[in-house]
Amino acid sequence: MIILGVDPGYATIGYGVVEYNNSIFRTLDYGAIKTPPEDFFEKRLFTIYNLINDIIKLYKPSDMAIENIYFTTNKKTAINVAQARGIIILSGYENNCKISEYTPLQVKQAVVGYGKAEKYQVMEMTKKILKLKIMPKLDDISDALAICVCHGHSGTSSKYNDNKMR
Amino acid sequence: MIILGVDPGYATIGYGVVEYNNSIFRTLDYGAIKTPPEDFFEKRLFTIYNLINDIIKLYKPSDMAIENIYFTTNKKTAINVAQARGIIILSGYENNCKISEYTPLQVKQAVVGYGKAEKYQVMEMTKKILKLKIMPKLDDISDALAICVCHGHSGTSSKYNDNKMR
Repeated sequence: MIILGVDPGYATIGYGVVEYNNSIFRTLDYGAIKTPPEDFFEKRLFTIYNLINDIIKLYKPSDMAIENIYFTTNKKTAINVAQARGIIILSGYENNCKISEYTPLQVKQAVVGYGKAEKYQVMEMTKKILKLKIMPKLDDISDALAICVCHGHSGTSSKYNDNKMR
Repeated sequence: MIILGVDPGYATIGYGVVEYNNSIFRTLDYGAIKTPPEDFFEKRLFTIYNLINDIIKLYKPSDMAIENIYFTTNKKTAINVAQARGIIILSGYENNCKISEYTPLQVKQAVVGYGKAEKYQVMEMTKKILKLKIMPKLDDISDALAICVCHGHSGTSSKYNDNKMR
């Protein structure tokens, strides 16, 4: 299967595209979508929608794995991230991706083996599993790649349903 | 101008379609989109996107006026409403609507004349201004109609920019 992993946001959206077959990962692409802060918010949403669509049309992922979001101290930011996340999910659904969501705890559990792993441990393991020479410095991208690994390790049909959104 | 007023949600989305010319309102349509709770969340988002698109294609509103959202005690609900709201805004933007957002305080201020108005006062005034024989019982619909009135009363170009999303 081909997995599109997404770290949702509205200013910066990290993504990774990874093939996973017979327990072997192959990294196809990764990067970040950035939207200009001077654009009106609706235009930023439209930009995200178009660019996620472009990535999906290029790599034809069967699965989208996206990070869950939580409320931090900045509620306005959380609302805007959620609005963008809805659009990313819509794009996946329109393009026939199976969509799963994972908490940071699940990602740590699946990548490192325990939920209290440190961030650098998740990054090291992701780098090793995906056979990357260097790990992208931008957190949004490395998080998206870790979600790809998490989904590969978790993505049986029963796990898929465990991680469906309700 | 034709205004599409929206009370955002993911289970029930209230909408109103109102024409506003030379200080006169004419109500063209109102109703509620409902999404089945048994559907996966991504399918519910897709349903909302399609039905909002249908309404926009039918009435060709120049303006979309949508209520601001806030955090209540249920954070999961707030995230899901925000995800749906992003999609409603995307649909408006794709169909060339100018998009404005209003807080409940602004709606009360614009419809009744003061921000501390009671809900029933907002409803009574909306009914009167829109010349409705009966007011729809569903809060989501009456809120959407009140937002239409608010936008009509506020919708000069300078006010439009005041209520742009950032």
